[in-house]
Amino acid sequence: MTDTPASADLDAERFQTVRVDLGSRSYDIVIGRGLLQEAGVRIAAVKPGARLAVITDETVAKLHLDAFSKSLSEAGLDHVVLKVPAGEASKRFELFERLCDDVLAARLERGDAIVALGGGVVGDLAGFVAASVRRGMSFIQVPTTLLAQVDSSVGGKTGINSRHGKNLIGAFHQPDLVLADTAILDTLPLRDFRAGYAEVAKYGLLGDEPFFTWLEDNWKAVFAGGPERDEAVARSCQAKADVVAEDEHEAGRRALLNLGHTFGHSLESAVSYETERLVHGEGVSIGMMLAHEFSQRLDLIGQDTIDRVEAHLSAVGLPIRISDIPGQMPPADTLMDIIAQDKKVSRGSLTFILTRGIGRSFVEKGLDPATVRDFLTEKLTR
Amino acid sequence: MTDTPASADLDAERFQTVRVDLGSRSYDIVIGRGLLQEAGVRIAAVKPGARLAVITDETVAKLHLDAFSKSLSEAGLDHVVLKVPAGEASKRFELFERLCDDVLAARLERGDAIVALGGGVVGDLAGFVAASVRRGMSFIQVPTTLLAQVDSSVGGKTGINSRHGKNLIGAFHQPDLVLADTAILDTLPLRDFRAGYAEVAKYGLLGDEPFFTWLEDNWKAVFAGGPERDEAVARSCQAKADVVAEDEHEAGRRALLNLGHTFGHSLESAVSYETERLVHGEGVSIGMMLAHEFSQRLDLIGQDTIDRVEAHLSAVGLPIRISDIPGQMPPADTLMDIIAQDKKVSRGSLTFILTRGIGRSFVEKGLDPATVRDFLTEKLTR
Ligand SMILES: NC(=O)c1ccc[n+]([C@@H]2O[C@H](COP(=O)([O-])OP(=O)(O)OC[C@H]3O[C@@H](n4cnc5c(N)ncnc54)[C@H](O)[C@@H]3O)[C@@H](O)[C@H]2O)c1
Ligand SMILES: NC(=O)c1ccc[n+]([C@@H]2O[C@H](COP(=O)([O-])OP(=O)(O)OC[C@H]3O[C@@H](n4cnc5c(N)ncnc54)[C@H](O)[C@@H]3O)[C@@H](O)[C@H]2O)c1
Ligand SMILES: [Zn+2]
Ligand SMILES: [Zn+2]
Repeated sequence: MTDTPASADLDAERFQTVRVDLGSRSYDIVIGRGLLQEAGVRIAAVKPGARLAVITDETVAKLHLDAFSKSLSEAGLDHVVLKVPAGEASKRFELFERLCDDVLAARLERGDAIVALGGGVVGDLAGFVAASVRRGMSFIQVPTTLLAQVDSSVGGKTGINSRHGKNLIGAFHQPDLVLADTAILDTLPLRDFRAGYAEVAKYGLLGDEPFFTWLEDNWKAVFAGGPERDEAVARSCQAKADVVAEDEHEAGRRALLNLGHTFGHSLESAVSYETERLVHGEGVSIGMMLAHEFSQRLDLIGQDTIDRVEAHLSAVGLPIRISDIPGQMPPADTLMDIIAQDKKVSRGSLTFILTRGIGRSFVEKGLDPATVRDFLTEKLTR
Repeated sequence: MTDTPASADLDAERFQTVRVDLGSRSYDIVIGRGLLQEAGVRIAAVKPGARLAVITDETVAKLHLDAFSKSLSEAGLDHVVLKVPAGEASKRFELFERLCDDVLAARLERGDAIVALGGGVVGDLAGFVAASVRRGMSFIQVPTTLLAQVDSSVGGKTGINSRHGKNLIGAFHQPDLVLADTAILDTLPLRDFRAGYAEVAKYGLLGDEPFFTWLEDNWKAVFAGGPERDEAVARSCQAKADVVAEDEHEAGRRALLNLGHTFGHSLESAVSYETERLVHGEGVSIGMMLAHEFSQRLDLIGQDTIDRVEAHLSAVGLPIRISDIPGQMPPADTLMDIIAQDKKVSRGSLTFILTRGIGRSFVEKGLDPATVRDFLTEKLTR
C-alpha cells in the first residue's frame, strides 16, 4: 500500500494505493473518500487525451453520474455515457452486443477507454466489452459497491451469463486503473453492503488471521464509513492483488478465493438466482460457514473456530445457515448435481476450499462426493 | 521448419512443422497432404482425453466432415459438430451467441477444445467462441482454404464483424495446434485459391525477395498441388509466425503484414464487401500493386520493380488495377473517407506500408492524406 509517483502530487494523505503487479499490465487501485471528484484528473494522468465511454447502470447514474461526469469534463475528458438497467439481468448477450455497437458508433479507437461506473454487474459487462471491441481497449474501473471494490474490480475477470450458468462467457482483461471511492458506498443499501462485507471477511478467513481479528474489532467503523472502511477495502484489495499477481489465470492459489463459493453458488443456483431470497455475498457467508463446518467434520478444526466465524458473520447481520434462506430449499442431491455442474468442478473429482484454522485455507482436490452429500443432507434437515 | 518430438513418430517425411514461438503458449503448425486422415491422432496427442466441439460451415462439412469425423472417432475423441452457413455473413453476433450456447449445452469444460474446420470465416468465429466460453478454452485450427492456412489461422486474431465494420469485435486467442492439410485445397474453387495466393505473394513482397523469386518460378506447381504447395504454405506460415512471435499484439513490425491492406480494405468496403465483385485476396492484390505504385511515386522504387510485381500477380490471374473490379467505383474522396475510418489509422495521421524494393517493405507513419488522395484520383480515372 504505497503511493506511486503518478499520484504523489495528489493528496497522498487521503488515499491509499494498492499496486497489482502484472508486469507490463500492472495497475493501481486507488482507495479513499471523495475520489470520484478527482476521477477526471486521475484518469487523464493514465490515459492522456483518450476519449471515454462510461458504462453505468440506471441506479448508479441517478446517484453519482453527475459528479463523475463533471469531474471528467473538468479534466477535459470527452466522454459518452451508455446506460444499462440495474441488476444481474444486464449481464447478457443482448446488452453486450448493444454496448459493443454503441462504443463503435461513438468512434472510440483502440487507445481510448471504457470506464465502468457501477457494481460488479457493470464492471463484468463493461470489462467484457472493453476486452472485445477492437480485440481489446483500455479499461478503467470505478467500482461503486463494496463487492466490486474488494472483489470484482480486482483480478481481470470479466463476462456475462449464459442460459447455462453464470459468468460462462467472458475474458480475462485487466484494467489500467481502479478508483475505489469509499464515500460512494454511503448510498449503498445495507443489504448490499453486508453482502460485499462477506468477501472482506473471506480474505481474513482464507489467509490472514490478524485481518479477521481486526475486522472483529472494527467492523462497525467499516460499516459506518470511517477511515477503517478505507483500511478494510485496501487490505482486501491487497489480498486479492497478491493472489492474482501470483496466479493470473486461476491455475492454483487463486482457487483459495473461492472459499465458501462452491457451497454458496449451489445455494444461489438452488434459488434460481432470485436476489430477493439470496444475493451472492449472502450465499458466500453461508458457504463459508459450511466450509468451516465441513472442515470440522474432517477433524481439521475445532468448535471454537466455528463459533468465532459464526459470531462475527451473524454480528454484521449476514445469514449463516441454509435455513436462513427464505422459502423451500431443494434436497441435498439437487445441490450435489449443481455442485457437479459448477465450472470449478473438473472431470468428476470434487475440489473444495477447506481450512485448518482462521487464515489457514487450502485447496482440497478429489473429495469423495458421498461425504459432501451426507454433510449437506444433515445441514438441510436441521 | 523442423519437426517437433510430438510428431517425430508420425510420418516426418510427408509433413513439415512450423513452430510459433510464444513462450508457454507456443504451438505447432503442421503442413502436408493427407493430414486430415491423421488429425485425430495428432489432436489426441496435444489434448489427450479432451471432448471436442467441431465448428465448420455447410460447404466444408459436405466435402470434408466425414473424413475428419472418422479420424477423430478412430482416435477415440468424443465430439459434437456445430455447423454455420458458409460465407462472411456468419461472422456475426447472433451466431457467436448461438455457438457459445451450443458449446456450453454440449457440456464442454475448460480443458476441452473447440476445433475450427474451415476457412478464415470459421476460424475467426470459432476462435472468438473458444476465447470467450469459460473465459478461454483450448482451440485447434484445421484451416481448409489457402488464405486460412497461410494467414488467418496463424497469429491468434479472432473475431466477428459489426455493423460498423469488419473484425471489430474479437479477441487475441492462440490455438494449441494448427493442422494444414494441403490436399484439402484440391476442392477449393480456383478463385478462392488465387485470393489466398495473394497473401502468399505478400510474404515475399514484404520481406523475402528469394521467396518471391521462388514463387515466380514455382507458382504453377503451387496451384497444381505438388510438394511446392506444401513448401509455399510452410514458408508463408514461417514468415507470419516470425512476425507474430516478435510482436504478438500488433504494436510494430506486425503492421508489415498489412502490405496492400489499407488500399485493399478501402476497395472491399467500397463494393460493400460484395464478394461477387471482390474478395479479400483480390483486394489485397490490387492494394499491393497500389502500394508499389505509390512507393514509386515517392521515388522509393523504380518501374522495373512495378513491372515484376504486376507480371507475377497477373500471371496467376489476380486483378491488379482498380478498373479490374466489375461495376462502378466511388470517387477518391469516398475511398479516403473509408481509409480514415479504417481501424489501422489512428488519430488523423495516415499509416501505410510502403516499400523500397521487393522484400523491403516498411511502415510509414504520418503520410500527408492529400498526396494519397491525388494518387487515388489518378488511379480511379485510368
Ligand atoms: N469479476 C469478478 O471477479 C467478480 C467477482 C465477484 C462477483 N462478480 C460479479 O459481480 C456481480 C455482483 O456485483 P454487485 O453485488 O456489485 O451487484 P450490482 O452491480 O448489481 O450492484 C448491486 C445493486 O446496487 C446498486 N448500486 C451500485 N452502486 C451503488 C451505490 N453506490 N449506491 C446505491 N446503489 C448502488 C446497483 O444499481 C445494483 O442495483 C455479479 O454479477 C457477480 O458475478 C464478479
Ligand atoms: N484472423 C486473421 O488473422 C485473419 C487474417 C486474414 C483474413 N481473415 C478473415 O478470413 C476470412 C476469409 O477467409 P476465407 O477466404 O478462408 O473465407 P471463407 O472461410 O468464407 O472460405 C471461402 C469459401 O470457401 C469455402 N471452402 C472452405 N474450404 C473449402 C474447401 N477445402 N473446398 C471447397 N470450399 C471450401 C467456404 O465454405 C467459403 O464458401 C475473412 O472473414 C477475413 O476477415 C482473418
Ligand atoms: Zn464472491
Ligand atoms: Zn489479408
